[in-house]
Formats: sequence, structure tokens, C-alpha cells
Amino acid sequence: MSNLKTYLSACQQRVELALDARLPAAHILPQTLHQAMRYSVLDGGKRTRPLLTYATGQALGLSEDQLDAQACAVEFIHVYSLIHDDLPAMDNDDLRRGKPTCHKAFDEATAILAGDALQALAFEVLSHDPSITVGAEARLQMISTLGKASGSQGMVGGQAIDLAAVGIKLSLPELENMHIHKTGALIRASVNLAVLSKTGLQADVAKHLDHYAKCIGLSFQVQDDILDVESDTATLGKTQGKDIDNDKPTYPALLGMAGAKQKARELHEQAVASLSDFGSEADLLRDLSLYIIQRSH
Amino acid sequence: MSNLKTYLSACQQRVELALDARLPAAHILPQTLHQAMRYSVLDGGKRTRPLLTYATGQALGLSEDQLDAQACAVEFIHVYSLIHDDLPAMDNDDLRRGKPTCHKAFDEATAILAGDALQALAFEVLSHDPSITVGAEARLQMISTLGKASGSQGMVGGQAIDLAAVGIKLSLPELENMHIHKTGALIRASVNLAVLSKTGLQADVAKHLDHYAKCIGLSFQVQDDILDVESDTATLGKTQGKDIDNDKPTYPALLGMAGAKQKARELHEQAVASLSDFGSEADLLRDLSLYIIQRSH
Repeated sequence: MSNLKTYLSACQQRVELALDARLPAAHILPQTLHQAMRYSVLDGGKRTRPLLTYATGQALGLSEDQLDAQACAVEFIHVYSLIHDDLPAMDNDDLRRGKPTCHKAFDEATAILAGDALQALAFEVLSHDPSITVGAEARLQMISTLGKASGSQGMVGGQAIDLAAVGIKLSLPELENMHIHKTGALIRASVNLAVLSKTGLQADVAKHLDHYAKCIGLSFQVQDDILDVESDTATLGKTQGKDIDNDKPTYPALLGMAGAKQKARELHEQAVASLSDFGSEADLLRDLSLYIIQRSH
Repeated sequence: MSNLKTYLSACQQRVELALDARLPAAHILPQTLHQAMRYSVLDGGKRTRPLLTYATGQALGLSEDQLDAQACAVEFIHVYSLIHDDLPAMDNDDLRRGKPTCHKAFDEATAILAGDALQALAFEVLSHDPSITVGAEARLQMISTLGKASGSQGMVGGQAIDLAAVGIKLSLPELENMHIHKTGALIRASVNLAVLSKTGLQADVAKHLDHYAKCIGLSFQVQDDILDVESDTATLGKTQGKDIDNDKPTYPALLGMAGAKQKARELHEQAVASLSDFGSEADLLRDLSLYIIQRSH
């Protein structure tokens, strides 16, 4: 895993530069809006989704240069969803990635608009960014994939299911359905945007990578729930115990802590099994799956 | 203008069906979210932006069948922006298109999410809707055009400038800059998505249509400001006198009522002048320009 840590660090630096280059500069009007967008996007986060895009690219023999726009588009969608989720009318959170949330650092109206503008930017980047080297049809498939993953039957739909579930005892299938939408859809898109960047890929290889993405999408959420109980606010960079306080359904609540940890391990094993077509070129994807269930924040 | 009224009515019915067909059905999960999206999009509004898309298409010899997706994409963006603008943290409005605003009929969290999902749907529709008959490159240009028009240097940017201007005395150029972004950008996109749907169009024709769109984008806003003073809440379908109450800069405040009406007429004349390349096939665009400055709501 020490190689992974070096890779993660280098990759996070790459993502930071790629995001910075695609965000409007802070001096461009309207300045407050652009400052809020930059505040929320830059200098924070694990960049799990961009890392997955690059790691999938590595498994498919693509260079990182060919994946910067796709990685940024997914991260812009992710950050906009965090800004909106943190709003008082939603999760009402003061802390995100170790900093005040966007509506705390700026104001609610600016936070709503910064999120809206980041969503538009994600699709705009996919539509014309020169780092994408595949043809127009593949670009359109990327936009369609990201649109579905982030829309009412993807991420936003999952958030709606989540809000409706506060105070309600969900069954395990219902909890899983929520997460498949809320976080799983965008994690799958992170992998699938890299898959769409490879011309002439066999359908079954794409299918196996999609299955890998489904498994780690869920294991990521199981580990998030575990950390919400076990970690402290400083390590987490967001308010600890928030899910329990909000009476939100979680894996530890449904399966017990040992059961939740077992579930995370099983999902990791399934994720690795779905990479059996690949040799060492997919080691990064394997390591990332393990990292997701072993991380402390 | 009686022909125009018949056309508007027929076209509004067409838009209603086209929007309905592209929205997720109300029974699809998550139901409340989809109901909120349908509540805000359907059965309301003048559909000015879709009408402009179809009317531009008529001037270019395109059929309405070739423009349904483009018209819907622009309207989805417009409606999402209304939902978010009406939120308590923004304009805090209770009435829109003669009905309770989305956050009043549902709740704030659902309204935020419904807006977010409508934005994603707009780009998704452009990426794969079969009503678009031009090639993949032109589709990508449509997505890029709509992304820029709705993002931080377009509509959302205009909204940010507007919020920052409450209580501040703007000069005429500053007021115009705000409206060019806030409403003008999306009105231009409505015209330009039709322009991008015509293959082999000469650059100067596209330029003249873009100039037409710029002029009516501004005249639309001048007339909105006039109506905010002169019309009543029932005719307007939204709260009358809102701009004055909020101490927002308006054309009547800067130019006087007679000056604002003169400004609207001059913009209409400029709009019509920019259509001099066209014969009767652009009569609808000419009539729409007049309608925009003569409407009572």
C-alpha cells in the first residue's frame, strides 16, 4: 500500500492542477461566485472519483493526459452535490473537508448558485475539453452517462430518497437502493467515463469494470457509515456522529459494527474478483478497493 | 397579431407534450422528486424560450420535429433557475406562474433537488434525444452553448450579479450587463440551439440571428420591469411590485416609465432590422419581438 500512497498523493496534485485550470479565475466577474466555486472545489477532498477515473484508465492503457477533463467533470458534479447537501434546508452542516461549508464561508444564495454553476461547468467541460481524444459520439455518451448518473434517477434521486428516509427504519435492500443512487451512481460514472475514453473496448470488459464500480460504490458507503460512528470530527473533516444524530439509516445500525465490516470486506472481494480479466495493469484498482474499506477519513 | 396568438397557443401545446414526454413519469421513484419536477415544468409559463427556438427554426426552414429536444432543454434550464431563484435564500417568492412556488408546494430540500435534476436532464436530453437530426459535433456545440449560457459567466452569473446589486444604485451599463447575463444568455441560447440545428448555415446569417436574440433578450427584461410596476399580481402570475419592494435596480427606475418604454421600442426595431436577410419566413420572429414588448404578463 505504500506505493498506493505515493500514487494517491501525486494523483491528487494532478487533479488539483486540472481542476484549477478548468475553473474560472477568481478575478473574473462575478468574483464572489467564482471565489465560492474555487473555495469549494480546490484544496480539499480525497478525490476518490477522479482517482478511480485515472486508475481505470491505467487498467485500459490510457494516459492520464487523456482523462483530465473526465476526472474534473465528475469532481465538479460531486462538489456541487456536497455544497447543496450541506445547505440548511438539506443536511445543515457547518463543516466540510475540514473547512466551513460554502454557505457558512459565503452565504446561502451564493452556495446555491456556486453549486448550480459547477453542474453546468461539468457538462461544458465534457462537451469541448481538448484533453478528450476520442470522437464526438463517445463524448456524447460521456455526457449522457454523467447526466443519468447525476440526475433524478441517479445521485439527486438518491439524495431525495435519503431525505425521505430520515427517521424511518429502512430494510437492507432499501438502504442499499438509496446508496446505489446517492453515491454509487457517480462512482460508477467515474469508472465508466474512463471506459468510454477507450476506443474498441470489448463489451464484457466494460461490463466487468462496471461491476467493480458497483461493488466499490457500496463498500465506500459502508465504510463512510462505519467512520461516522468510529472516527472523530477532526480526522473526518466533517461533523462526526451526524448520521446517528439525524436518525439516518446506516449499515452499522442495520448489521451491527461487525456485520458492517464483514459487508465491506465482501464487497471488496467481489470488486477484486470482477478484475480477473486483468493483470498487473489493474493493481491500482485493486489497491483502491482495499484503500476504500481501510481509510480512516 | 391574431395569427401569432393562434400560433403561440398551438406551439405552447406542442411544448407541453414535448416536455411531458421527456420528464420522468410521476409514478417513477423517487416519486416526490419527480412530482416536484413535473409540477414546476408543466402547465404554466409563456414558453418564450421554446417559442424562440421553433420560430428561429421556421426562419431557417427546419421542422418543429427537429427542434423539440432543444426547446425542452432550454425550458428545463429556465424552470430550474426559477425554482432556485424563488427559494427563501434567494428571492423568497411564494407565487410563480400563478401557482405556489415549488418550495411552497413541496419543501425547500425538494425544490433544491428538483432544480438540480432538471439541469442534469437538460444536458442529458441534448446528448441523446432522437429528435435532433444533426450530427454529433453539432450536438456537442449545443451542449457547450447551453453550458456557457447557463453557467457562472451566463445565467447563474447574472443571478449572482443581481443578488449583489440589491440596495445598490446601478448605472445603466451595469444594469444592462446584469440582464445580458441573467436572462439574455439563455434567450440567446434558445435562438442559437435552432441555428446549430441547421447544417451548412452561413456565418453572417448566424451572426444576425444572434444579434436579434441579444436585442429581444434585453427588450424582454425592460418589459418585465415595466410590468412589475404597471401590472397586478393576478395578471402577472407572480408577486407584483417585488422589484421595487426589494429595492432592485430596474429600467423604469433608471430611465423613467416613458424612457423605459422608448428603450423597449428601440430594441424591438433593432431586432427587426437584424432580420433584413430574411423574407416572410422570419415574420414569426418579427411578431415575437413585438409581442415581447406588448405583452401584459
